[in-house]
Amino acid sequence: MPNIKLTIEYVGTNYHGWQIQPQVPTIQGVVQAALQVTLRAPVVIRGAARTDAGVHALGQVATFTSPDPVDCRRLLRSLNAVLPEDIAVRSVEEVPEAFHARHAAVGRIYRYQIVEGECVSPFLAAFAAHSRRPLNVAAMDEAAQALLGRHDFSSFRAAGDLSDSPVKEIRGSRVARTGERGDLIVYTVEASSFLQHMVRNIAGTLMEVGRGRFAASRMRLILEARDRRRAGPTAAARGLCLIKVFYD
Amino acid sequence: MPNIKLTIEYVGTNYHGWQIQPQVPTIQGVVQAALQVTLRAPVVIRGAARTDAGVHALGQVATFTSPDPVDCRRLLRSLNAVLPEDIAVRSVEEVPEAFHARHAAVGRIYRYQIVEGECVSPFLAAFAAHSRRPLNVAAMDEAAQALLGRHDFSSFRAAGDLSDSPVKEIRGSRVARTGERGDLIVYTVEASSFLQHMVRNIAGTLMEVGRGRFAASRMRLILEARDRRRAGPTAAARGLCLIKVFYD
Repeated sequence: MPNIKLTIEYVGTNYHGWQIQPQVPTIQGVVQAALQVTLRAPVVIRGAARTDAGVHALGQVATFTSPDPVDCRRLLRSLNAVLPEDIAVRSVEEVPEAFHARHAAVGRIYRYQIVEGECVSPFLAAFAAHSRRPLNVAAMDEAAQALLGRHDFSSFRAAGDLSDSPVKEIRGSRVARTGERGDLIVYTVEASSFLQHMVRNIAGTLMEVGRGRFAASRMRLILEARDRRRAGPTAAARGLCLIKVFYD
Repeated sequence: MPNIKLTIEYVGTNYHGWQIQPQVPTIQGVVQAALQVTLRAPVVIRGAARTDAGVHALGQVATFTSPDPVDCRRLLRSLNAVLPEDIAVRSVEEVPEAFHARHAAVGRIYRYQIVEGECVSPFLAAFAAHSRRPLNVAAMDEAAQALLGRHDFSSFRAAGDLSDSPVKEIRGSRVARTGERGDLIVYTVEASSFLQHMVRNIAGTLMEVGRGRFAASRMRLILEARDRRRAGPTAAARGLCLIKVFYD
């Protein structure tokens, strides 16, 4: 039975996250339903990352086993014809049987966006957290870079996280100012994998640094403390986007 | 009584256009209601452009006469606190009594966006028309430039348009490819003012050129014909955005 890999892009605003749940719309639920309509058979898809409610994705990856041979080009067209506007399948490929979207992933990139200033652009409102006060981006970038390398990220781990180990390797971690008006602050982070809420907890801590409540040098102390209470609050889900999942 | 100028940004998706109408949500209606709440007096605002249902704006301009003195900085804050996420006031300024958002405007820039390809990014779906077939951007740009200068734009005028004259002066008219994936085609047009549906009718005609149904050289013939039936269809409202209004 063919193993099929999907690359999926979505605006998460109207969904209760990736993972299927009864009674509420989820990305996994809607994509599975679209697959069932087009393949005329129920399938279960496995995603590379369980994005939270309201989190977006440019490059989520998911796999499923099809009961029948699949014409990938045709499936791509029919899926996008069935899916709502806020979810799109960017590619459909047949992959080796052993390939698993989550287990085979060797890296992930997330982006966290913050709009600075009195007023949030309506074009960014669903895709960024908001900071009324100006942010010190140089300090945020310095703090972000203190996370590079292999560390115990317990200080940025959600209480209910079930990961085997809090040790993760961060390979990229930078903050930069961008946007047509220069009011958009973007945090880009790449790691082997992430703990639950890890990027949002880091982003919330970076915002404290940006506002001057935490010194940039405090990031290392927070990391070393391995204590969630030392870090900043969990930043809003709407600012987060899964950009890319890497495979060997 | 102070004359107040507002610069307004909005995502038009959920509105029946700028102009106030009974029973349906409009941008003018929502902004007037927000002003009434904050100023505790009914006011009537006049917009520089009557954007259609579903059309967006980065820089709509509107004026109103306030019955009382206005603290502009404070009004900006309270308006944005009251307005929904899809409408934001970017600036509030007191202007001379004679200033009128529409009559004083000496130019406007609009942008029309088209996503090309099998699949529309969910992040662009509300802000661009869709062309499944690839578009010849060089031909579109050539056709766009044929509109430069002062002409009778009757071929691109909506049937119900009440403008005094179909003669307008186009000062800029270019098509370029952009977007993170290179699948976004952007038409930018600047003119003294525009006829009703003029930009969308030009965009629909440019899409015919892009698809190879019309030669680029046909644009001049369509213009000279002064006959709406010669041009392409009206392109979807969602692709259009009012970028800027100019004053002396």
